[in-house]
Amino acid sequence: MPPLGLAEIRRAADTLMGVANRTPVQTSRTLDQISGARVFLKCESFQRVGAFKFRGAYNALSSLRSSITVQPAIALSSGNHAQGVALSASLLGLRAHIVMPEPVNPLKYQATLGYGATVHVVPAGENVEEVMKGLVDELNGIEIPAFNDERIISGQGTAMLEFLDSVPDLDAVLGPVGGGGLLSGTCLAGHGLVPAIKIYACEPRGALDAFYSVRENRIVPMTHPRTIAEGLRTSLGTLTLPILRDHLEDFFIVEEEEIIPAMRFAFERFKLIIEPASAVALAPLLRPEPVLAGKRVGVILSGGNVDLSAFFNTLSGSDGC
Amino acid sequence: MPPLGLAEIRRAADTLMGVANRTPVQTSRTLDQISGARVFLKCESFQRVGAFKFRGAYNALSSLRSSITVQPAIALSSGNHAQGVALSASLLGLRAHIVMPEPVNPLKYQATLGYGATVHVVPAGENVEEVMKGLVDELNGIEIPAFNDERIISGQGTAMLEFLDSVPDLDAVLGPVGGGGLLSGTCLAGHGLVPAIKIYACEPRGALDAFYSVRENRIVPMTHPRTIAEGLRTSLGTLTLPILRDHLEDFFIVEEEEIIPAMRFAFERFKLIIEPASAVALAPLLRPEPVLAGKRVGVILSGGNVDLSAFFNTLSGSDGC
Repeated sequence: MPPLGLAEIRRAADTLMGVANRTPVQTSRTLDQISGARVFLKCESFQRVGAFKFRGAYNALSSLRSSITVQPAIALSSGNHAQGVALSASLLGLRAHIVMPEPVNPLKYQATLGYGATVHVVPAGENVEEVMKGLVDELNGIEIPAFNDERIISGQGTAMLEFLDSVPDLDAVLGPVGGGGLLSGTCLAGHGLVPAIKIYACEPRGALDAFYSVRENRIVPMTHPRTIAEGLRTSLGTLTLPILRDHLEDFFIVEEEEIIPAMRFAFERFKLIIEPASAVALAPLLRPEPVLAGKRVGVILSGGNVDLSAFFNTLSGSDGC
Repeated sequence: MPPLGLAEIRRAADTLMGVANRTPVQTSRTLDQISGARVFLKCESFQRVGAFKFRGAYNALSSLRSSITVQPAIALSSGNHAQGVALSASLLGLRAHIVMPEPVNPLKYQATLGYGATVHVVPAGENVEEVMKGLVDELNGIEIPAFNDERIISGQGTAMLEFLDSVPDLDAVLGPVGGGGLLSGTCLAGHGLVPAIKIYACEPRGALDAFYSVRENRIVPMTHPRTIAEGLRTSLGTLTLPILRDHLEDFFIVEEEEIIPAMRFAFERFKLIIEPASAVALAPLLRPEPVLAGKRVGVILSGGNVDLSAFFNTLSGSDGC
């Protein structure tokens, strides 16, 4: 099988044409001043379901429709992937079953139900993988992985394809890393179009598995993540590790104390609502990082799904007000 | 003097070129479903200083720089106009004095100071107009009105110029009305480019002076406004009344109870932070209004300057959580 690359991402972009939003790229003079760089923000918060996850999910599910027997899509997620799969299934006329481990976020649960998916809530302590496999067998379903899947990675890469179409001369791009689906797609699209672009992974110190995995060239599992960036608590996969290893310039390790101020900065200065995972990719520019000074730097703001009280409690906790 | 029109707005657009942000236009499938219309949101929350006010202020101040004796700009405002004038003065190398009546919003006060303006806080009960006139005399300054001024109206009209450049075939546009500067500019640019476009004023019932002023064709002063949309508590002016009278299709009167749900809707569904004034222009589409069904409708979201705790307290108050 030939390695995944730009061709697959371009095909994914064709599949997503007119279905996914082409998300805006925003700039901020204040951020440019603070960072010493010229910064461009790719706002996946304005993607359908409020995060980039729709791209990969729709790309993966669209391939199911073409099979002879239409099988239901089955996904394990308590977050944005659940919504991405649920909405994609609804748009494609497919059935979706979502396995959600407790504790369940009521807003994301409601949104997933609202898109017409069946939600299977798994009590804490029970084995979600087994529930998942049971459903796949019982329903003759197809599992839609959250990141370790070529169709998912290709779909996520379409964000970078658009980004470079809007801003062709980026010197560097920063993205958050959890399972590595978004960042792998970013690497393949980025180096496919601009071989000299430097791609940086941003990872919270409380979930620093991708950093060690790439350094040791083996999947170092994330066992006890301690970060509010819930989207980044995942380990890498067998597909994402080698892509990141081959393409990343470096990591920016983000302290937990930098995440909330970056969210607050986005709220106050850009009027953007961003998730903690997105704040992890923004934080290095607020230090700022000397290696980025004078450069044209892209940041992938992965999503904006934070519920109002969590958003407020998180942000106001940072200064005790 | 010839009446104000498209030519002045085009000149203002030239003045603002490269200085003001060309703000994005966003769409939402959910909003389209609810409203039965195809809706386009002009996001002035992403304008410099977080609101459309920068446009008019910069346009007005840029004319000061060309005079022989450079006079300081003096403005009365506790809100977005203060920041618009302060930032414009700073960019143009002018001095700005802002008269701010108490109670002062600490964030807006800090932002105005941060742009290098001198801020004169006027205790409640004192006559702000007199303080203003005293400063104009003492400093040989020039007053920059918040809305009743041709350069201000022309500057605000540039938002509509851009809007129709992005979406040329709008059937209707909705904007909030306070003093009427933004809406007057919208009328002149809108009908200047698309004579058939229907322009609707959106006004909260707790500050319903523009509605009566247009109906009675005289300025009905706003004496005791009762609305959280602080930007809309102002009376019309001698320039804005005749423009609105000649151009408006109709008013949408918005109940106070509709404002916070519209802000919450924007937060949850579009990931947009909008001020109460902007929510007033969005609210009619959430009822929805039958007259807008099937139409291509533009909404001018005037700004996004809400501080975090006010934002949360306002939004969470609506459902008691």
